Amino acid sequence: MDGSRLHTQTAAPRAPAAPTAVTAVRLTPVLVADPPLLNTQGVHQPYTPRLIVEVTTAGGATGLGETYGDTQYLDLAGPLADALIGRPVTDLNVLPRLAAEVCGDSPAATGAAEVTAGGLRGVQTADKLRLSVLSGFEVACLDAWGRLTGLPVHALLGGKVRDRVDYSAYLFYRWAAHPGGRGEPDDWGAALDPPGIVDQARRLRDTYGFRSFKLKGGVFEPVQEIAAVRALAAAFPGHPLRLDPNGAWSVPTSLKVAHALQDVLEYLEDPAATTARMAEVASCTDLPLATNMCVTTFAEIREAFTRDAVQVVLSDHHYWGGLRNTRELAAICRAFGVGLSMHSNTHLGISLAAMNHVAATVPDLRHACDTHYPWQTEDVLTERLAFTDGALPVSDAPGLGVTLDRDRLAALHARWLADDGTYRDRDDAAAMRAADPGWVTPRVPRW
Amino acid sequence: MDGSRLHTQTAAPRAPAAPTAVTAVRLTPVLVADPPLLNTQGVHQPYTPRLIVEVTTAGGATGLGETYGDTQYLDLAGPLADALIGRPVTDLNVLPRLAAEVCGDSPAATGAAEVTAGGLRGVQTADKLRLSVLSGFEVACLDAWGRLTGLPVHALLGGKVRDRVDYSAYLFYRWAAHPGGRGEPDDWGAALDPPGIVDQARRLRDTYGFRSFKLKGGVFEPVQEIAAVRALAAAFPGHPLRLDPNGAWSVPTSLKVAHALQDVLEYLEDPAATTARMAEVASCTDLPLATNMCVTTFAEIREAFTRDAVQVVLSDHHYWGGLRNTRELAAICRAFGVGLSMHSNTHLGISLAAMNHVAATVPDLRHACDTHYPWQTEDVLTERLAFTDGALPVSDAPGLGVTLDRDRLAALHARWLADDGTYRDRDDAAAMRAADPGWVTPRVPRW
Repeated sequence: MDGSRLHTQTAAPRAPAAPTAVTAVRLTPVLVADPPLLNTQGVHQPYTPRLIVEVTTAGGATGLGETYGDTQYLDLAGPLADALIGRPVTDLNVLPRLAAEVCGDSPAATGAAEVTAGGLRGVQTADKLRLSVLSGFEVACLDAWGRLTGLPVHALLGGKVRDRVDYSAYLFYRWAAHPGGRGEPDDWGAALDPPGIVDQARRLRDTYGFRSFKLKGGVFEPVQEIAAVRALAAAFPGHPLRLDPNGAWSVPTSLKVAHALQDVLEYLEDPAATTARMAEVASCTDLPLATNMCVTTFAEIREAFTRDAVQVVLSDHHYWGGLRNTRELAAICRAFGVGLSMHSNTHLGISLAAMNHVAATVPDLRHACDTHYPWQTEDVLTERLAFTDGALPVSDAPGLGVTLDRDRLAALHARWLADDGTYRDRDDAAAMRAADPGWVTPRVPRW
Repeated sequence: MDGSRLHTQTAAPRAPAAPTAVTAVRLTPVLVADPPLLNTQGVHQPYTPRLIVEVTTAGGATGLGETYGDTQYLDLAGPLADALIGRPVTDLNVLPRLAAEVCGDSPAATGAAEVTAGGLRGVQTADKLRLSVLSGFEVACLDAWGRLTGLPVHALLGGKVRDRVDYSAYLFYRWAAHPGGRGEPDDWGAALDPPGIVDQARRLRDTYGFRSFKLKGGVFEPVQEIAAVRALAAAFPGHPLRLDPNGAWSVPTSLKVAHALQDVLEYLEDPAATTARMAEVASCTDLPLATNMCVTTFAEIREAFTRDAVQVVLSDHHYWGGLRNTRELAAICRAFGVGLSMHSNTHLGISLAAMNHVAATVPDLRHACDTHYPWQTEDVLTERLAFTDGALPVSDAPGLGVTLDRDRLAALHARWLADDGTYRDRDDAAAMRAADPGWVTPRVPRW
């Protein structure tokens, strides 16, 4: 498998390695098909880069992890893989220091440049970039540790407090196909108005059993998106609804939408783009505000929580540096009376399994988690994770409880190898320019 | 061993138990010798109650835990032991729910009555009482899990980030002996003035290598305690010093002491008794304020942190519900720029070992931890933990890395059995009445 990088011990160990000692790390970048899903920055590209991490121990267990595959993440993953060799997979608290040490000189890690990959991942600092990379390693270590000891990952996090985790249907305005017929076709058709969104919701509900619905907004004029949410409320009375314009709105617009939808929304997600604006919105409405944009790092918590800017944090274990940090975030939220749910974007089954394990351990998860997974028809697992009644069962098998399909991994990696660089960094604005050559990333507030 | 309670499975399990399944829990209350150490509430009793928890698994490992041994704690420990039988020792996230379920009807857990045992443990709620009890079970489960898998407890917490943990000398005003010659004699002599405190500090430093010093205050007029700290500063120039009157002072008195000692104190600990008063003090001095009284539960964090009432939290894994909750507290402190160190009161080597493991995993532990252990000449271990250069090495042996001495346990339990109830509940005011029959617990602020 050319282009994947296998990091192994180069010098012989001085003593027989403990079963938990890492003997090899394999990093395999892949390109995953993504449908033409619209957001305020543009549209998903036909393919999105992800990185698959395999950590092998002296005891013969191999654990799986997954994180962003953009170039800057790949650049940091190599040195971190080298640093991990010889260390026990249980040595998770040192990962941040290791990452800081090995990535310290990397241009990507200086933090001087704002990283705009995807544009929707919130503030991008050197620290967050490192945490996003090491999240893939932490999950792989936990998976390997679990396989070694016969324990599921949730047990390594203190044990599950529920047997199933609820998820929400993730609705997108979308085209029927990518411009020029690029990418992989699907049969969903376009969804560009309220009836199209309701049809999409119905199919997601019928297929997976989801009982709550989130609409990715910030695409059309707010009045159109209000109409779409109203149509959902009429079609699914009493079901929790959410709307997420990714910070596209001004404070007055946010308040107008909050007022128009306060009787049907469970929460309004990132209506405005900064903590200050969110605080202003929050001070004028009783509708809870959720975020996965203005609170995506530990450094952002203090201001947001003391100003009561957000009432629900949508955690993402990639941003936050892994499953254990996600549990720490949950503890902080609990202490401050802030709700917790979970964010999801283009990812494969490894990350969904990881998310499911950590979600199973958080005592006060009162909102269904987002899941982007139904939009990913490709995976690197032998068996896809299957939602029933809108939930995923919590696996009690050792580790994550998923199995890598090497043929599928090879095929998605071959796509990455064959790519000329067009898709190796996610850029939703560039994808939009395939349809609208004059498109530039909109400034916020857009409305 | 009469009076210790062995909880075992009464019904045969339906399937062969996993190695991690709890098959038996033994609870053994003991009375531990305590010197006549003075504080603002009175004086330590000649003997202090503690509870030793032993958790045995189907795999044959037995883990050790320790917590408060007062009657109310014992009353809750029995039902929790029963509830644990058959569950995996990894099932730690469900302990709070289990404790709430089995203790729900206990009078001690209703929270209606304020528990004043010791008087120095901060707010006492039903939730905190349960957490204090389950902390002994959590540590025992972690110890058993570590012994089963060959991993040290710090590895089960994500791994140590340091090889040694620094501790501070814990200085007390004290009498040479308990009134009436009760209790166990020692050769420390009295320390009731600045020279006596300096002598005590010198002996603790010479014996254990401590480099920082904490004086338990609130015993004499503040001017006398200021003089004692000044004497310490003269005897140990440049060494970090701390003074802790357990909330005995008014806001003006706190500020006078802060002003008088700001050039030599590392921090001032609990000068005033409530979060509101601490916030008032903090707003008028640059001297950091530490607490193990006004922030002892997750419920107290929000007010204290948003008001900037404390700059250092002294965690105690008994209060906070175990080692994993202590790590969550550390994460909350980190996010809010609040320092963390650790509190210690009368406890044995099991709790010290547990504290050392969790302290080893906290990345930003910038203050030496308190340790009361040198005042405990008795223990239930085959080998006492040994400070060198003011620090304890972090054990890499399986579990906590300590071994129970059944003969010593039996002897301390026999003392508990023989006691007529005088010492089964810690009461520093009652102990003081042995010397001063008219003594009542002073109201705060005392000065």
